[in-house]
Amino acid sequence: MTTLERSACELLDRDDPLRKLRDEFILPSDTIYLDGNSLGARTKGAAERAQEVIEDEWGTGLIRSWNTAGWFDLPAKLGDKVAGVVGGGTGSTVVTDTTSINLFKAASAALKMQAADAPGRRVILTQRENFPSDIYMLQGLAEQLDDGYEVRLVDDAEVTAGFPNTMTDEVALVVLTHVNYRTGRLFDMATTTSAIHAGGAMVIWDLCHSAGALEIDLAGSGADMAIGCTYKFLNGGPGSPAFIWVSEALQNRFTQPLSGWWGHAKPFEMSPDYAPAEGIRRYLTGTQGVISMAVAELGLDIADSVNMAAVRHKSLQLSDLFIELVESRLADHPVQVVTPREHAHRGSQVSITHPEGFAVMSALIERGIIGDYREPEVLRFGLTPLYIGFTDVWDTVEALREILDNRLWDAPQHKVRGAVT
Amino acid sequence: MTTLERSACELLDRDDPLRKLRDEFILPSDTIYLDGNSLGARTKGAAERAQEVIEDEWGTGLIRSWNTAGWFDLPAKLGDKVAGVVGGGTGSTVVTDTTSINLFKAASAALKMQAADAPGRRVILTQRENFPSDIYMLQGLAEQLDDGYEVRLVDDAEVTAGFPNTMTDEVALVVLTHVNYRTGRLFDMATTTSAIHAGGAMVIWDLCHSAGALEIDLAGSGADMAIGCTYKFLNGGPGSPAFIWVSEALQNRFTQPLSGWWGHAKPFEMSPDYAPAEGIRRYLTGTQGVISMAVAELGLDIADSVNMAAVRHKSLQLSDLFIELVESRLADHPVQVVTPREHAHRGSQVSITHPEGFAVMSALIERGIIGDYREPEVLRFGLTPLYIGFTDVWDTVEALREILDNRLWDAPQHKVRGAVT
Repeated sequence: MTTLERSACELLDRDDPLRKLRDEFILPSDTIYLDGNSLGARTKGAAERAQEVIEDEWGTGLIRSWNTAGWFDLPAKLGDKVAGVVGGGTGSTVVTDTTSINLFKAASAALKMQAADAPGRRVILTQRENFPSDIYMLQGLAEQLDDGYEVRLVDDAEVTAGFPNTMTDEVALVVLTHVNYRTGRLFDMATTTSAIHAGGAMVIWDLCHSAGALEIDLAGSGADMAIGCTYKFLNGGPGSPAFIWVSEALQNRFTQPLSGWWGHAKPFEMSPDYAPAEGIRRYLTGTQGVISMAVAELGLDIADSVNMAAVRHKSLQLSDLFIELVESRLADHPVQVVTPREHAHRGSQVSITHPEGFAVMSALIERGIIGDYREPEVLRFGLTPLYIGFTDVWDTVEALREILDNRLWDAPQHKVRGAVT
Repeated sequence: MTTLERSACELLDRDDPLRKLRDEFILPSDTIYLDGNSLGARTKGAAERAQEVIEDEWGTGLIRSWNTAGWFDLPAKLGDKVAGVVGGGTGSTVVTDTTSINLFKAASAALKMQAADAPGRRVILTQRENFPSDIYMLQGLAEQLDDGYEVRLVDDAEVTAGFPNTMTDEVALVVLTHVNYRTGRLFDMATTTSAIHAGGAMVIWDLCHSAGALEIDLAGSGADMAIGCTYKFLNGGPGSPAFIWVSEALQNRFTQPLSGWWGHAKPFEMSPDYAPAEGIRRYLTGTQGVISMAVAELGLDIADSVNMAAVRHKSLQLSDLFIELVESRLADHPVQVVTPREHAHRGSQVSITHPEGFAVMSALIERGIIGDYREPEVLRFGLTPLYIGFTDVWDTVEALREILDNRLWDAPQHKVRGAVT
């Protein structure tokens, strides 16, 4: 692709089969929003849906709405929609709680199974650059179990190579982010899962930075469990509830310790003894925030309605263009692309470094182009194909060029840390 | 009080100093809502607040709203409002996650401290009639720790008597609901806490059925920890997030195992090692549902604006009236009041039994009088003094009388289990 003129990008937008999806979102007209990998865009009907839940379901239906408006079934109903996007299969997924808490459930259940089958395995591997909360949750679990469990951090290259140095017979569980949140590196789910299984360990995939942005085949890849959020590429709204998927073969093999009443086999019998529901519902714990959950459904419906192969195709076109423009138009500046060039190793973002990355991103945001910044030096640009166009990419790199050429980032207000998301 | 005529109730309503608070809620005009102990009423500005969050904060502010709209500080901000209602003290409470999950955090932390100070103590006591999810969570925790921990169920009378038969030197922790959800029995927080501490154990109070309905002095009672929901008497909305309170003396003594990034000392430094925040923020785990949380704030603001002594006074007037009317007007029927007569032992509900309780409640709901039913035979009537009046109580008992006198509950549609909340 040689698309170095803006007019060529306009043509690409005109012919983009996904272009009409932009109408499903409402974004400020003066903004190019490249942070959908952190918080997705506002869905068109969100305010109306919230109003309906509040006025009709809460206000008029009152307590009856747990049944009549289907509140109690929302985690499974939305879970099936997520499953459609990530290849999970019907009845395999629930939307509930937070990614961190769902990781605790999944990891606890996996370690329990390993303790029964392979009691010597007490090591949990995860990427050093996994999203920190995942690492913290595993550390909290290992400390609580207080029985020789240990969390070991591995570099991305070790994962890509199939764990040649770290997969020992001590390893019980591997927890992997599917896409590195900082660099945008994508890991191959099927081959990595196979390597982990060959080593005798189980795997939990964190799909926060991939669900809704690319094709995922959880069931087909042989994965054991997965977790993820709905507020990034799935556009569920701020802090919308997370999801958990467990492979069909494992669902009834064990329980998880956050055994609240929503995961009980008969939640309304009020028995004093816990008995887990059959299937994925045993991964539920307590009562969920209905308004946030109902609004999240709109984002899931959009993702469910599109062809993920088409989304992935456009995503790679966008990131190819972004990288090409950075390399051709910012060649005079100390800018490095840290996102992998190989499509097979690239998620749906482009990350670049600049020594004054924080100040540069501040200046960009001031112009209405919203990416974000991550230490050290990384400027992140999320590319959500549902609402980002080729011209947006061209305009972003052009704004970057102007800022860098004219040292516009050198103003004092751009040097103050803390305000950039 | 001898208030057996409706006209006397009308006078009580006219002179009720809390009457104007009814304007803060929107309820259907044809409904008497006596299920606020299960799901509180819709707050007046809820739909507008949700719209503001969705359109302005999410839609326009986008990712920046984590800082500019204060999303990141909502758990602590709302926590301080809850603390004002339950006597917790500023900086002692966060609103986050679910009651069940907050119990897991609190109980895990308490057991960790006891394991250090008194390692022989491995028993957790809780009421047999605690809300089942609390029992299930404790069972899940004990099973996970897999180190001799055991959950023992005790009768309410044993709690009221100060644990004469069950408080041994094996007991590490006592988890108590402040009000029995089925019978409405209230337990004395200060004297019960003293008895537990005298026995060498710690206590966690579940305030789901008391917060917002009566005066609570958590700090003054010497309690260790507390949890509760915001969607009952605090009117936070369906499934609105729960709260957790930890006494100031204990906050920094230990951590909890659900150690996600929101509880980290420096969440944006992205360190690969967990370090707990100082104070109550270490009880946070992951990203919260902002829309549900923002709407919950409206209910907390109402509770914070009223004098809880006045609320309690009216609550007891209402339940006294309810009991008096049941006993005088339903005397010909096999109805038993199971809620304690003594004010000191009564929460903010009246529960009665009838052999056909389920069918009777169905008939009542059909007339627009919404209470709920709990096995076996219990009809529950929650009394939220913020929006329930004396005439509402009179009309409810009168409707019950008509239904019972004329066996209106005997129609086939009322006999089918499953539809009553």
